[in-house]
Amino acid sequence: MQESEHQDSQEQRDLTPPSSEGAARAIEEEHPADIALRLEELEFEDQLRIIRSMAPGDAADSVAEMERHERVELLERLDPRHAAALVSEMSPDDAADILEELKDEHALNILGRVPKEDAAEIRNLMTYDPDTAGGVMNTEIVILDERLTADQAIQVIRTEIKDKEVPYYAYLVDAQERLTGVLSMRDLLLAPAGEMLMDMAKNQVLVSVTFDVDREEVAHLISKYSFLGIPVVDYEDRLLGVVTYDDVIDIIHEEATEDMQKMVGAGSDETVDSPWTYSIRKRLPWLFVNMLNSAVAAYVVHLFEGSIAEMAILAVLMPMVANQAGNTGQQALAVMIRQMAVDKLDRKKCWYAVFREIKIGLVNGIFVSLIALAAVFLLTGKGLLACVMATALLLDMLVGSLAGAGIPLILKKLGRDPAQASSIFLTTLTDSLGFFFFLGLAQVFLIAR
Amino acid sequence: MQESEHQDSQEQRDLTPPSSEGAARAIEEEHPADIALRLEELEFEDQLRIIRSMAPGDAADSVAEMERHERVELLERLDPRHAAALVSEMSPDDAADILEELKDEHALNILGRVPKEDAAEIRNLMTYDPDTAGGVMNTEIVILDERLTADQAIQVIRTEIKDKEVPYYAYLVDAQERLTGVLSMRDLLLAPAGEMLMDMAKNQVLVSVTFDVDREEVAHLISKYSFLGIPVVDYEDRLLGVVTYDDVIDIIHEEATEDMQKMVGAGSDETVDSPWTYSIRKRLPWLFVNMLNSAVAAYVVHLFEGSIAEMAILAVLMPMVANQAGNTGQQALAVMIRQMAVDKLDRKKCWYAVFREIKIGLVNGIFVSLIALAAVFLLTGKGLLACVMATALLLDMLVGSLAGAGIPLILKKLGRDPAQASSIFLTTLTDSLGFFFFLGLAQVFLIAR
Repeated sequence: MQESEHQDSQEQRDLTPPSSEGAARAIEEEHPADIALRLEELEFEDQLRIIRSMAPGDAADSVAEMERHERVELLERLDPRHAAALVSEMSPDDAADILEELKDEHALNILGRVPKEDAAEIRNLMTYDPDTAGGVMNTEIVILDERLTADQAIQVIRTEIKDKEVPYYAYLVDAQERLTGVLSMRDLLLAPAGEMLMDMAKNQVLVSVTFDVDREEVAHLISKYSFLGIPVVDYEDRLLGVVTYDDVIDIIHEEATEDMQKMVGAGSDETVDSPWTYSIRKRLPWLFVNMLNSAVAAYVVHLFEGSIAEMAILAVLMPMVANQAGNTGQQALAVMIRQMAVDKLDRKKCWYAVFREIKIGLVNGIFVSLIALAAVFLLTGKGLLACVMATALLLDMLVGSLAGAGIPLILKKLGRDPAQASSIFLTTLTDSLGFFFFLGLAQVFLIAR
Repeated sequence: MQESEHQDSQEQRDLTPPSSEGAARAIEEEHPADIALRLEELEFEDQLRIIRSMAPGDAADSVAEMERHERVELLERLDPRHAAALVSEMSPDDAADILEELKDEHALNILGRVPKEDAAEIRNLMTYDPDTAGGVMNTEIVILDERLTADQAIQVIRTEIKDKEVPYYAYLVDAQERLTGVLSMRDLLLAPAGEMLMDMAKNQVLVSVTFDVDREEVAHLISKYSFLGIPVVDYEDRLLGVVTYDDVIDIIHEEATEDMQKMVGAGSDETVDSPWTYSIRKRLPWLFVNMLNSAVAAYVVHLFEGSIAEMAILAVLMPMVANQAGNTGQQALAVMIRQMAVDKLDRKKCWYAVFREIKIGLVNGIFVSLIALAAVFLLTGKGLLACVMATALLLDMLVGSLAGAGIPLILKKLGRDPAQASSIFLTTLTDSLGFFFFLGLAQVFLIAR
């Protein structure tokens, strides 16, 4: 693998002008995903030359595979006529995704030049929320009348299948276009010639989703049942499209990225390839939120300025309490957010999970506090200070556990993403309360006496 | 969706004894993944009753779908004869995965009672590293001699396919069992009867991996090319098995969980369903590491105890510096770890990514520092203190950006997981240096004069 990667980058270098003509011919035999990677490395003029030299369908597939930011830039610089030619060669769901990324006027300009029938389908797909089944489904599917026989069906497939993106299943519909069954190509291959499709699908337990189901839920169903795809229907059970395993792989990647990045207040779709100014726009607001939050902790410390002036060692130990509890909380938070990403928690399991984290926090807290007790006593010789430190640590680690498990649940209850800025909220709590426990106990037991 | 979930839990309650006999009959029509969920809710005796009432193949599929901890517990409590009966009904790759989870003596005990041929295959699969292609591949695949014709192939498939787990592709091999091509069921369905398979596959660009390729790399290939599966070969190109899209969906989920949980020092495979003592064993060592790390920061503060005694407000502001820089660093860290999960970074791109984060940190740092400057000046009226705060903040946010981008790269260079405890290492740096910058500057400009 390593070696072929090197080879790739070698060829990439060869690809830059003046030799781009020759390379353009070679590129056509590659997978669109690879061509997309190469296109991303090139300047606009060279991208244009490569795209012009390719068959229109291949060019469209390659552009559809490019990174979001890269393809937006490319399409916005292309003249609308050329862009429309590319877009009309794409599968309608890719076309809809891409046009949604462009500025409205630009998208409309391009859509106006796409052949009418394609444009109508793309426009239709653009009406679905991108975070739902409708927003990610493919519409180029094999649909068969359930009253056909197996051999008639194979005949239909032989003539129709070539331009369909999802060639592993055929979907059966009745006269009202309602979904009634699913057959794999294998089923058709093995069926006796005269058998009716509706009879072949008779005892199926058919799983489908309506167009407005959250895409994360769709991903969950497909990964739970190892489906290749799941049909999407409207409220009257009419077949609209199919979400396939490869869409789901993308969704899972994207959701994992969203969770991890949102947790700390980075943009949910940032990558190393996003413009850096985009990252600033996404992160800066959360840094301000974090600043306001840490002002709360600072205020708590401010309340005890007198104690600190009297006993500066408090300022030495106080960050340790907050830090340790913050880490404890983040461990709980990480497990909780991942759990909510791969599994649905019912009410009972939520309580179970919170209680579980508190138990873990308690035991870990006791271990850590005892060590802190010994260490502080050995280093300072002050028994009472050591006790205050250990008690504050234990209390704050419990706060961390409770907050780490609870914050994502509360965010979800409020209708927000369970990950959103959860780490920021968590440290606000562990910092403020950590300082409060430690400095408060110190004031009562060390300073006041 | 929501409704059917409720229904499920309804039925679950009905399932508990004394009515479990009736429910056991109903359960057989469900998907193994659903049965697994139900089994997990039951006590051992009831699990046993359900399993005994099911067809052996269905029971095996359902047990294979159970959570790791749950199925380990079940198999360790089953008598070995019964466990062996279940295991020999599983697909060999599932059987190997499950036996690897058991204690050695237990696994051997069960393997000794599995029919010889199955046992040999399972034992063979157990020799592969679970993190590699060999460790996740399926071996029940359709293999065809490349010298067959399309109609002969269909005949072979009709008689052989029924017990194969991967029925969408057939793999072509030559007389030496070397992989020479891949055909989909669709290809076979559409082929002229007399055409030779080797001719059908003639112009294919065949992508395969050797058994020792990292599973994350396999997932990367499958998701990049939207493959349904990727064949696994030995060094002589002989076909060993296939990794399929549903394995990849699991891998992507697991890797995302690993990254997020390792980042903060939680166990890479912890879930809400892991025994809580397991979580303690996984997390406690990292809490100790965190404690040692935060002792470094405490030591830095200790160096400036004199200054703090003189000017307790330093203790109020100092956590804000560290916290803000920590958050900045975690934003960079999250984007970097996700990038490394979905994409391979070459040397050039690594430098680009680090430089990009520094730019973002610089701009965000300037904004945040200016606000801090104004806020501290307005609240305290001390211009010099405000300047010290702002300068320390800017410097520490730059440290955070550099560390957030750099730590995963350094960990990888050292051959470690890029995520492992990265958040802990990060806050060590931002805390220690944040305190150092702030208290150091304060000592020079505020105390010493």
